[in-house]
Amino acid sequence: MARQPILEFWYEFASTYSYLAAMRVEAAASEAGVAIRWRPFLVGPLFAAQGWTTSPFNLYPAKGKNMWRDVEREAARLGLPPVTRPAQFPQNSLSAVRVAILGQDQDWLVPFSKAVFTASFAEGRSIAEPAAVTQIVDSLGLDGTQTVRAAAAEANKTKLRVSVEEARSRGIYGAPTFLADDGELFWGNDRLEQALAWATGDRPKGLR
Amino acid sequence: MARQPILEFWYEFASTYSYLAAMRVEAAASEAGVAIRWRPFLVGPLFAAQGWTTSPFNLYPAKGKNMWRDVEREAARLGLPPVTRPAQFPQNSLSAVRVAILGQDQDWLVPFSKAVFTASFAEGRSIAEPAAVTQIVDSLGLDGTQTVRAAAAEANKTKLRVSVEEARSRGIYGAPTFLADDGELFWGNDRLEQALAWATGDRPKGLR
Repeated sequence: MARQPILEFWYEFASTYSYLAAMRVEAAASEAGVAIRWRPFLVGPLFAAQGWTTSPFNLYPAKGKNMWRDVEREAARLGLPPVTRPAQFPQNSLSAVRVAILGQDQDWLVPFSKAVFTASFAEGRSIAEPAAVTQIVDSLGLDGTQTVRAAAAEANKTKLRVSVEEARSRGIYGAPTFLADDGELFWGNDRLEQALAWATGDRPKGLR
Repeated sequence: MARQPILEFWYEFASTYSYLAAMRVEAAASEAGVAIRWRPFLVGPLFAAQGWTTSPFNLYPAKGKNMWRDVEREAARLGLPPVTRPAQFPQNSLSAVRVAILGQDQDWLVPFSKAVFTASFAEGRSIAEPAAVTQIVDSLGLDGTQTVRAAAAEANKTKLRVSVEEARSRGIYGAPTFLADDGELFWGNDRLEQALAWATGDRPKGLR
């Protein structure tokens, strides 16, 4: 039996286009016959390293205004609920991503991640406080209090830092990003189809 | 006979994704039954207003590196020749855009614009000097010397400034941008399909 191709999906809970990608990546990957490895991380440290103190969508208002409109349009096109903007943007995603890192090889990583995105962008709820993340974990039938506590352990915090450093060293500069196992990098929800094709060995003709 | 829907295509000669859009917009628009109004402009003044002294692809090297790879992949996917990077990026597009503004309502605007993009990104040639632009106009069977001279007239320079100001006032912050006649704005080559659908009245269901 041939090994199923693998594509890494690097995502950030504060990122609107990571949300759109998270809600459609499973169906698209299944159709393409590709296994997705979900890789939660933080883009904040990468943005800070290039001198940004907040999201570029806040730094550049015309760009930010159209981003929200575009996300509304794309969400509607994908059949997602109407987008509701969280009161804070970008939200502090540290508590949520620590839990996701703890869940890296667990079967609850994907439902947890989708629940965080849905809370943030479909329901406009805060995901910033540990209590909000606890509630989301609880809603999956797991022990939220214990999970959030375990996620704050030093070893898990280090795992997150290592993931962010891995992202940077592999050329990631934003979210979402798709990484094929040969290192080919595709940035943005709009490149999911191309990344899946690449992972299956379907490359554009004439590419040098 | 129903009036054909119109979509404005705002493009910048120094922009790689404007190149990709320019080479595919005619076929896509024809299939969708939409008339395209080509709107040449300069993004430099908009970038400068938000504090950028050069292209964001130069300011942020990881982003820039992946942009070139992405443009190579997308060009191959579209069946375009291999991308050749001009020695300077971004190129100074002032001479070329002045000629395009002069050609705004002329039948040579589209072939001229595609010839400039091809010179820059398929052949890696400089388009910065007036002599290079003259040669491109000549190659279309027009009088390059006279055209470049006419494009440098004060009234035409003013027309370009007005176009850039129109872009800014209509919410444009980058290139390419597609603008529907109700003001709906789509940024980027990746949004051509959505913009064409919008122009024909085909809107995503559930959009507020």
